[in-house]
Amino acid sequence: MRDAFHDQLESVLGDLAGICRDVETAVRLATEALLSGDAAVAEQVISADVEIDRARERVEDQAFALLSLQAPVAGDLRVVIAALRMVSELERMGDLSVHVAKIARLRVPNVAVPQAIHPTIARMAEVAEDMVKRVGQIILSQDVTAAIELGRDDEVMDQLRRSSFAQLLSDDWTEGVEAAVDVALLGRYYERIADHAVSIANRIVFVVTGEHPRALQA
Amino acid sequence: MRDAFHDQLESVLGDLAGICRDVETAVRLATEALLSGDAAVAEQVISADVEIDRARERVEDQAFALLSLQAPVAGDLRVVIAALRMVSELERMGDLSVHVAKIARLRVPNVAVPQAIHPTIARMAEVAEDMVKRVGQIILSQDVTAAIELGRDDEVMDQLRRSSFAQLLSDDWTEGVEAAVDVALLGRYYERIADHAVSIANRIVFVVTGEHPRALQA
Repeated sequence: MRDAFHDQLESVLGDLAGICRDVETAVRLATEALLSGDAAVAEQVISADVEIDRARERVEDQAFALLSLQAPVAGDLRVVIAALRMVSELERMGDLSVHVAKIARLRVPNVAVPQAIHPTIARMAEVAEDMVKRVGQIILSQDVTAAIELGRDDEVMDQLRRSSFAQLLSDDWTEGVEAAVDVALLGRYYERIADHAVSIANRIVFVVTGEHPRALQA
Repeated sequence: MRDAFHDQLESVLGDLAGICRDVETAVRLATEALLSGDAAVAEQVISADVEIDRARERVEDQAFALLSLQAPVAGDLRVVIAALRMVSELERMGDLSVHVAKIARLRVPNVAVPQAIHPTIARMAEVAEDMVKRVGQIILSQDVTAAIELGRDDEVMDQLRRSSFAQLLSDDWTEGVEAAVDVALLGRYYERIADHAVSIANRIVFVVTGEHPRALQA
C-alpha cells in the first residue's frame, strides 16, 4: 500500500518536472518572439498554453486521488500539498509567458523592445529561463543545496529590473511612452516567473527538510 | 467526529472571510495613500501585511491538521483543498496592495497618479475593493449566484484597464514616462486583485456545486 503510494507520488513529481519543461519552452519561445517580432512563434506560445493547463488538471486529479484513497499524513501529506501548490505556480508561469508573447504579437511587425534596452531584457529572459530549467531539475533531484542557491539568484533578477527602470526613467530614454510601458510590464512578467521558480525551490526545501529555506540559511 | 470536522471547517472558512476583510482594508488604504500621496497610510499598509501572512499560516496549519487527523474524502476534501488555495490567493492580494502602497510611497510628496487619469484609476480601485468585499461575503454565504455574478464584473475591470492604456498611449498624454509606467503597473496590480477575487468566487462555486462556473453558465 505504502509502496503504491510512493510510486504514485513519484509519478506526480515526474509530471511536475514535465510541466516545468513545457514552461521552460514557453519562456524561451516567448522571448524569441519578443526579441525578433515573430508573430508565428508568439502564436505558438499562446496556443500551447492549453496543454500546460490540461497537465495541471491531471496533476490535481492525481493529487486528489492520492489524498482520498491513501489519506497520507505527516511528510507524505506535505509532499502532496506541495505538489498541488507547485502545479498552480507552474501554470501561472505558463500564463506569464503568454503575457510576454501577447506583447510581442501586439507590436508585430515591430519589435516591442527598443535596441537601447534589448540587452537588459534579453538578460532578464535568460535568467528567468535558466531558473525555470534549474527548478525542473530540483523537483526531480530534491537537491536542497541547489534549491537554496536558486533563491539567491533572485537578487540578479531584482538588479536587472532596477537597471531596466533606471534606463526607462533616464533623460536618455527617447523611445516614448508605449515602449516604456511595454518594457515595464515585461520586466514585471519575467520577475514574476523568477519569483515562482524560487517559490517552487523553497517548497522542495520544505518538503525535504521540514524547514523553510530562511531557517536553514540563518 | 464528523460534526467536529464540520465545525473546524466552518472555523477555517470564517478565518478566510476575516483575512478577506483585512485584504479589503489593505486595498482601501493603499488606494487612499496612492490618490492622496500620504506616506503614513502607505506605511500602514506595508507594515500590516505581516498580519495577513500570519493569518495565512494559521489557516494552512488548520487545514493540514484537518487533512491529517480527519482524512476527509469527496466534498469535504474538496473544501479543505479549496481553502488552502483561497488563502494563497488572499495573501497574494495583500501583496498586490503592498505594491500599490509602495508606488504611492515612492512618489511622496507627489501623487503617482496624474490628475488626467485620476478618475480611471480611482474607478479601478473602487471596483477591486468592491470585488474583495463581495468575495468575503461569498466565502461565508456560499452564494453561488453571487459568485457567478462576480465573475461577470471582471469585464468592467478589463474595460477600465483598456481605457487606462488608451489614455497613456494617446497623443494627449503629457505626463511623461514615469507616470505612464506607474499607471501601467498600478492597472496591472488592481487587475490581478480582481482576478484573484474572481478565482476565489469560482472555487466557492466548485465547492458548492461540484461544477466549474463556466459549465453552469453554458
